[in-house]
Amino acid sequence: MINEKYLKLGTNRSTIRELFEFGKKLSSEIGSENVFDYSLGNPSVAPPLCVNEGIEKLIREYDGTKLHAYTSAEGDIDVRKNIAHYIRDTFGAEAEAKNVYMTAGAAAALSAALGAIVTEGEEVITPVPYFPEYRVFAEEAGGRLVTVSAKDGGFGLDTEALGEAIGKACAAVIINSPNNPSGKVYTEAEIKALADLLKKKSKEAGHPIYIIADEPYRELVYDGVNVPYIPNYYDNTIVCYSFSKSLSIPGERIGYVFVSPKAENAKEVFRAVCGAGRSLGYVCAPSLLQRLVSDCLGKSADIDIYDSNRKMLLEALTSYGYETEKPEGAFYLFVRSLCPDAKEFSERAKKYGLLLVPGDDFGAPGYVRIAYCQDPKMIERSLGAFKKLSDEFRA
Amino acid sequence: MINEKYLKLGTNRSTIRELFEFGKKLSSEIGSENVFDYSLGNPSVAPPLCVNEGIEKLIREYDGTKLHAYTSAEGDIDVRKNIAHYIRDTFGAEAEAKNVYMTAGAAAALSAALGAIVTEGEEVITPVPYFPEYRVFAEEAGGRLVTVSAKDGGFGLDTEALGEAIGKACAAVIINSPNNPSGKVYTEAEIKALADLLKKKSKEAGHPIYIIADEPYRELVYDGVNVPYIPNYYDNTIVCYSFSKSLSIPGERIGYVFVSPKAENAKEVFRAVCGAGRSLGYVCAPSLLQRLVSDCLGKSADIDIYDSNRKMLLEALTSYGYETEKPEGAFYLFVRSLCPDAKEFSERAKKYGLLLVPGDDFGAPGYVRIAYCQDPKMIERSLGAFKKLSDEFRA
Repeated sequence: MINEKYLKLGTNRSTIRELFEFGKKLSSEIGSENVFDYSLGNPSVAPPLCVNEGIEKLIREYDGTKLHAYTSAEGDIDVRKNIAHYIRDTFGAEAEAKNVYMTAGAAAALSAALGAIVTEGEEVITPVPYFPEYRVFAEEAGGRLVTVSAKDGGFGLDTEALGEAIGKACAAVIINSPNNPSGKVYTEAEIKALADLLKKKSKEAGHPIYIIADEPYRELVYDGVNVPYIPNYYDNTIVCYSFSKSLSIPGERIGYVFVSPKAENAKEVFRAVCGAGRSLGYVCAPSLLQRLVSDCLGKSADIDIYDSNRKMLLEALTSYGYETEKPEGAFYLFVRSLCPDAKEFSERAKKYGLLLVPGDDFGAPGYVRIAYCQDPKMIERSLGAFKKLSDEFRA
Repeated sequence: MINEKYLKLGTNRSTIRELFEFGKKLSSEIGSENVFDYSLGNPSVAPPLCVNEGIEKLIREYDGTKLHAYTSAEGDIDVRKNIAHYIRDTFGAEAEAKNVYMTAGAAAALSAALGAIVTEGEEVITPVPYFPEYRVFAEEAGGRLVTVSAKDGGFGLDTEALGEAIGKACAAVIINSPNNPSGKVYTEAEIKALADLLKKKSKEAGHPIYIIADEPYRELVYDGVNVPYIPNYYDNTIVCYSFSKSLSIPGERIGYVFVSPKAENAKEVFRAVCGAGRSLGYVCAPSLLQRLVSDCLGKSADIDIYDSNRKMLLEALTSYGYETEKPEGAFYLFVRSLCPDAKEFSERAKKYGLLLVPGDDFGAPGYVRIAYCQDPKMIERSLGAFKKLSDEFRA
């Protein structure tokens, strides 16, 4: 019999994917130069040279059969050693190869990590705004996503509200910083307060409450902002990382789970991550890509382009009367909708070729997300459309 | 709380993976020249030229940002069109792009397909011998794997036994031909008999019973054996395909689900496959690899090497007193254990550096699987070890 839950998930695509598909259709109708697709976090900046050069080098120099062969389910041991070394060197955190599990991107990492530490009926808590697929992955793991509103007047962590929400049934808190969709980077003070809270709450609950640090945007920060490395503040941390954004290779699906060796039952958690990955059908992360990212550690695409996109949009939109916070990281602008219903606003924006994602799915109605990881020329061309849209609402 | 099921799955690796890891350890201790690792179906034959040349071409000629970008969740539309075209051309089966869902290999394809059509408590039936991970994937989908013994004195389909096992609770039958581990290819007569049985059983059950055709070994056949294309015999068929073996790229994780358009509720089944893939954390299949396999359709690695391996082993092992059927496809020899307990036999084989997988996990105790997708030189070197092992049992 057809699984109704999956039928629904496959029929009602995520709003983001729906807009992305709509954009492709619209482009074929009115020309791609008239569509300003801000829906998907699909980097427009070319991968750094190390990506294509690295692939060519691997193909030339690596044993042709071994390069494409199965690796261990956890990943190639040399790749895992390199990543552990990078974590130690860059963040000063304890890390060994045996703590690193290679995955097909951050989604696979989140699925395996949630699978490992969530049991039937437990809660996964995340502050608002949050990436909508967290709900899908938490439910697949048998859990329930509970969202907690952000601090009034911004997108900071509201430790008090989190404290009220976190009870015995809480298995994990997902923290996404730099944040999609707000661009917010949580400060060291916020992370410290969260760590203190979770230590207390874990004791009360009688079991560790894990932080799942979803960090695909770690390298995408502006104005020299510091992104605290959560394992240095809280032992029970599982980092889910992806190279999708830093290396501009989101389609290739490559990332990892790092279970901090300081976590309670770190060994068992790691094994459960492996077991979840196996059960979900992940045999190993793509082998060529494993070797590639190992050779590209520390490299990133030219994020100056995102920074100038950010400034161009911020300046123009503010001058047209839009309200938004200045994002500190990632490549999203989270803008207040010009009418109470952001879905209606998103619909009306389509008339001008503007594809903006309503904030409702991110748990923040009244906002739209603008993914500015786009060609600067498209952004420039789109400014007139943003102006017209604003004029329509102010008329 | 740690998920105990996943902890167990991650701790007790599959016997195959366990032997594979043991082999790597043993190699570092006694030298890889003294280890005859027949555990894993990791092709030793180099990928055809089109693989590495195709990757280089894509890197040179394809838009650098688009090549590595997200594709639609179902896969790149041109890739899906090419695959549908290939299915129509090669097998004469109806197929369109909208019936093809790109996946990260066969394991992901099986997980998504089973997720789509199995609901809590339903049965997934498979004839013996079978690939052990079917149980893991069926259980992840909420179902229960039921195995049905093969025809006496061989590994043919026992339609009568299947008929007794298939009831109302049966959602799907998994057919793996060429078969891992037996190397058996089911004949047209066997597939026709199965199709007739399932039509009758579907009517009795009041719902379609799907065939899931797991076909990673389709191209790996010897002596001109014909592999019937199941959608041509049975409408309610879902094909799970992988390029791992045909192109010798198992680590890259690329394959597809093809839902026959003639299947009942084909559209809904397809959508449910998409939904299951989404829920399991598959965002899209690796984008570079999608384009690559699309350019390599119909190509395959040099399987003459497998054929000569097959003949060399078959001749030698038979002369040493081992009993086995001549495999018609895949790259496995399924050999009768020389003592009643194949696990004991496998343990005793390790002394000679021989890593053989006991048949117990394949539902066929009393046999061991020998994956002969190995370097011919290793096979040659291993013959003495097989002789000694046989002598030990006959002493």
